[in-house]
Amino acid sequence: MSTVTTPPTGLAGTAAPRRDAEATKAAILRAARRLLARHAHADITLKAVAEQAGVSAPLILKYFGNKDALFARVMSFEADTDALLDAPLEELGRHMVRHLLVSQTEQGADPILRIVFAPLQGEQGDILRANFRTQVSDRLTRRLTGPDAGLRAELAVSALLGLGVMYGIARGTHLRATAIEDITDRYAPLVQAHLTP
Amino acid sequence: MSTVTTPPTGLAGTAAPRRDAEATKAAILRAARRLLARHAHADITLKAVAEQAGVSAPLILKYFGNKDALFARVMSFEADTDALLDAPLEELGRHMVRHLLVSQTEQGADPILRIVFAPLQGEQGDILRANFRTQVSDRLTRRLTGPDAGLRAELAVSALLGLGVMYGIARGTHLRATAIEDITDRYAPLVQAHLTP
Repeated sequence: MSTVTTPPTGLAGTAAPRRDAEATKAAILRAARRLLARHAHADITLKAVAEQAGVSAPLILKYFGNKDALFARVMSFEADTDALLDAPLEELGRHMVRHLLVSQTEQGADPILRIVFAPLQGEQGDILRANFRTQVSDRLTRRLTGPDAGLRAELAVSALLGLGVMYGIARGTHLRATAIEDITDRYAPLVQAHLTP
Repeated sequence: MSTVTTPPTGLAGTAAPRRDAEATKAAILRAARRLLARHAHADITLKAVAEQAGVSAPLILKYFGNKDALFARVMSFEADTDALLDAPLEELGRHMVRHLLVSQTEQGADPILRIVFAPLQGEQGDILRANFRTQVSDRLTRRLTGPDAGLRAELAVSALLGLGVMYGIARGTHLRATAIEDITDRYAPLVQAHLTP
């Protein structure tokens, strides 16, 4: 949550190649998410997002249209879940744990952690919860076989969320001093146990 | 997080018996914690805590002295950890999972969940993190034997935090529809696996 990401180069260029445009959009989304971890949606201005991302407010409008459209993207877990679930079922526990820890390390946040800020967001919080259910829990549920798939998916997601909180918010000193592969070796089997019991 | 607790009777009575005084103090702490889940410490007034708790501001002063002293209590996990760790090591996983779920159900929050709001609290957030480490993770570590006790304690706490987030904040529909004992049967062995591997 607290990592300050250096903006990628070429941020201000309106004629930047596609790769730089994608990096800029990602930087804007990260900035909006970081602000959403500390402030209610209604209190966040486009100017504040622009300053946090190191871009101009008009550039945000160019890429996202308006503030509501930007925050609709921020409230969505769709693209993040694509990456989170991108592994065969028998390796999914390892993949999800590693992906979460790598995201925490490289971006200072992980694909699903922003659900914890739902209580800040008033009615937007309910949108965030509904998106989380349909775009994360329900999608994982559809990957599972056997009884109680919905409950097992929620328990696996619980374990992932907690690792994100302990690593990224509580900043556990032992976790922070341990290699990602070692944490994954210990934690992933217990996530996998919910997926393929 | 969203459960509105009916204030216990006798809240306004200054000559209330000790049991009512304890219930009133608990209601005030719950109110302060609920506000801290949505607002930065600096923005919360004593008046707002009093209104949320259904008591008068002078009664809060009578019990806690001043706002800073009240929030020092709110920032502390000491008393909550006493209850969380109150079981023999070989049953501790079950006890912690059940205690967390019962607290969520009965109080709308659990003993350790408020660490997730650290990013809201500025410098107070660092106090909350330091308290969490010394009063939760380190205390659990001292209960464990064998190698990597500190890391294993943090991984067990991770699993607990995540269950609190999924139950209390994301409000997973399957979890919410499942009996506490059934959730405990499924989730506790995976917590216990970190405690006594």
